[in-house]
Amino acid sequence: MSCDFFKLANEGVQGLMPYQPGKPVDEVARELNLDPATLVKLASNENPQGPSPKALAAIQQELKELTRYPDGSGYRLKAALAKKFDLSTRQLTLGNGSNDLLDLIGRCWLAPGRSAVYSEYSFAVYPITTQAMGAVHKVVPAKNWGHDLPAMAAAIDETTSLVFVANPNNPTGTWLAEKELREFMQRVPENVLVVLDEAYSEYVDEQAYPDTLKLLNDFPNIIVCRTFSKAYGLAALRVGYSVSSVNIAETLNRIRQPFNVNSLALEASLAALHDDEYLQQSVVTNKAGMLQLETAFRELGLPYIPSVGNFICVEVGDAEAVNNALLKEGIIVRPLRPYRMNNHLRVSIGLPEENQRFIDALRKVV
Amino acid sequence: MSCDFFKLANEGVQGLMPYQPGKPVDEVARELNLDPATLVKLASNENPQGPSPKALAAIQQELKELTRYPDGSGYRLKAALAKKFDLSTRQLTLGNGSNDLLDLIGRCWLAPGRSAVYSEYSFAVYPITTQAMGAVHKVVPAKNWGHDLPAMAAAIDETTSLVFVANPNNPTGTWLAEKELREFMQRVPENVLVVLDEAYSEYVDEQAYPDTLKLLNDFPNIIVCRTFSKAYGLAALRVGYSVSSVNIAETLNRIRQPFNVNSLALEASLAALHDDEYLQQSVVTNKAGMLQLETAFRELGLPYIPSVGNFICVEVGDAEAVNNALLKEGIIVRPLRPYRMNNHLRVSIGLPEENQRFIDALRKVV
Repeated sequence: MSCDFFKLANEGVQGLMPYQPGKPVDEVARELNLDPATLVKLASNENPQGPSPKALAAIQQELKELTRYPDGSGYRLKAALAKKFDLSTRQLTLGNGSNDLLDLIGRCWLAPGRSAVYSEYSFAVYPITTQAMGAVHKVVPAKNWGHDLPAMAAAIDETTSLVFVANPNNPTGTWLAEKELREFMQRVPENVLVVLDEAYSEYVDEQAYPDTLKLLNDFPNIIVCRTFSKAYGLAALRVGYSVSSVNIAETLNRIRQPFNVNSLALEASLAALHDDEYLQQSVVTNKAGMLQLETAFRELGLPYIPSVGNFICVEVGDAEAVNNALLKEGIIVRPLRPYRMNNHLRVSIGLPEENQRFIDALRKVV
Repeated sequence: MSCDFFKLANEGVQGLMPYQPGKPVDEVARELNLDPATLVKLASNENPQGPSPKALAAIQQELKELTRYPDGSGYRLKAALAKKFDLSTRQLTLGNGSNDLLDLIGRCWLAPGRSAVYSEYSFAVYPITTQAMGAVHKVVPAKNWGHDLPAMAAAIDETTSLVFVANPNNPTGTWLAEKELREFMQRVPENVLVVLDEAYSEYVDEQAYPDTLKLLNDFPNIIVCRTFSKAYGLAALRVGYSVSSVNIAETLNRIRQPFNVNSLALEASLAALHDDEYLQQSVVTNKAGMLQLETAFRELGLPYIPSVGNFICVEVGDAEAVNNALLKEGIIVRPLRPYRMNNHLRVSIGLPEENQRFIDALRKVV
C-alpha cells in the first residue's frame, strides 16, 4: 500500500537517469581474477603522480580538528585564491568539487521554461544539471569535436539563461582561443550567463588560450569554474571554486550549503595552491605522457583528437569491445558510448610506465 | 552596464538570506585579544573528545589515494550500514553531511505551490531548504519548546509534500516518544513524506524513544536522516545518510552528486561506525557533562530546557548581552536570536573542564 514517491518528485528529477552504482576497482579486479595492485587506471583524468607532499602535511596538521565543523566561509582558502589571482574574496564561491558549483549555478538560474545551451560531446554534468532543474536542453552540434561557438551563440534565445562552455573540453580535449571566445561573448546577451568550465586549464600551454579572469572585467556575465581535482591532484577531496562578479557570487553563496567543503579539503587545497613545484611537475609529466601516447597512436595508425587536457581520445573501431579486451589486460580506460562517441576511448595521461602498459595492451588487442 | 543576476535568479533563491561569512575562531580570538588555545568552544554541538583513533587510522591508510576520485557509490560504507542496521544497501543515500540530504529531499519534492510543515524552534536548515525551492512554509507553533505533533498533522493540507520532524530537536533538545510518533504517522496521508531527522539520536537513552528503522516498515513515507558529525565525532568530514524505502532512495540517488562524499570521509566514517568504544564514550561523556551543567543551572537559578541531545538551552535574560560577556571570557556558545529564542543560550556539552570554565564564566556574567 505504499505510494510511488518517484512519480511524485519534481518532473526534472524524474527525467534523470537512475544512478548506476559502480563497483570499486578492487571489486572489478577480483571479478576479472586480476591483482588490484597491477591494474592501470587511466579512466578518470586523475593526476598520476600521487598527492602533493604539502597537501599531505596540511592534512596531518588538521586531523586533530576532525570533530569540529569546517570553516563555513573558507576564509583562508578564499583569501589565498584572491591574492594569487588578484581578485576580491567576494568574487569567489567554493564548491564540493566543481560539480557542486555547476549544480548551484543551475539551481539559481535554470527552471522549467528556461534553457541551457551546451555543446555536443561536452561534460556530462551540463545535461544532468539542466535536467535536474527541468529546464530545456539546447544541444549544439560539435565542430571538429569541439565547441562551435558561432552556432552556440545562434542557439541562444529569449528562454536561455545559461551557456556552458568547457575550455579545454572534456572528453574531447579541444580548446578555444581568446579571440574566438571574445567574439562569442560579444554576441551573448548581457542577461545570459556563460559558465566557462576551466577544470583542465592548468595543463594548457597555448599562447592564444584566454586569460579568463581578465575577460571577466569586460564581460560580467561570465562565471569561471575551476577545480583542485586535476593538476592540483586532489580529486579525492572535492574542492572547486568559481570566480565571477560579486553580484553572482553573492547569489551562489546564498544557496551553497555552508559546510559544503570539508576541513581537510580546505587545508589540503590551500597547501596545494602554494605548491608550485607539484603543479609544474603535473604539467611536465602530462606533456611527456601526451607525446608518448600520440607517438604510439601514430605508429598504430589510430586516429586521435589533439588534446590540451590530461587525457586524449583515440579512435579504435568498436570501443566497447576494445575496452573489454583492455580490461582483461588490467587496463581501465573510458569508452565514450555515453557521449555517443562509440568508436573512441578516452585515455587519461598516466606515468610513463602506465602509459607504456596501456600502449602494449592496445597493440595486443586492436 | 552589468545586469543584476540576483534579480534574474529563481524566486526561491532570491528569498534566501545572504550568507554571512563567519570568521574562523582564530580571527575572533585575535580581535578579542585572547589566546586561541585558551578558548572554550561550546557552540556547534561538536563532540568534545577529539577524533576516534580508528577513524584517524583509516584516513592515514587512504591518504595515498588523494589524487583518485572517491567511490561514487560509497559501496563499503553502505554495505557496513546495511549490515549494522539490517537493511538493504538500496535503502541508503549518502550525503555531504545530513544537510546535503535535507537539501536533496527538498529538491526532489518541494516546488513553488508545494508546502513543507515544520515546527517553530527547529533546525535552521528546514526553512532554508523550503525557501531555496520557493515552496510554502507551514511553521507550527512549538509546545513546551518541542514539536506539537497533533498541530503539525492538522497543518498538513493538499499542498503539503514534506514534513520535517527533528528527534531529538535542535536547538531545544526535546524528544518524541514512539507512541506519539506512531499516532502522528497514522494521521499523515501516505503521499506526504515525513523526514525524521535523527542527527542526535545516538545520545538518547530513553525507553520510549522510537526504533525508527522498525517504524519504516509500517510507514514507507518516512525518511530517516542521520549523521557522523555528532556522536561519531566527524563534523569536519561531512557524512550523513538517509534510510528510506528503495523507491525514495532511488529517487534521491538520481539527483545526488556522484562524488558528494569524499574519500577520506567515506573511510573515516566506515571506521567510526565500527568504533563502539568511541561511541559509548561519547554518550558517557555527554551524560556526565549534561548533569554537570544542569546542576550548575539549578544552583544559579537559571531555567533550562531538559535535553536529550549533546547540548542544552539555558534562559539567561538578554542572551546577546550574556553571550558578548562570555566571549570576553573566552567562552563561545550559541545565542538563539536567529531562532527567536532571545533569552536562551544553547550550550554544547564539553569535557568536564570545559563545562566548568563555562559555568565559572556564566556565574561571573549573569
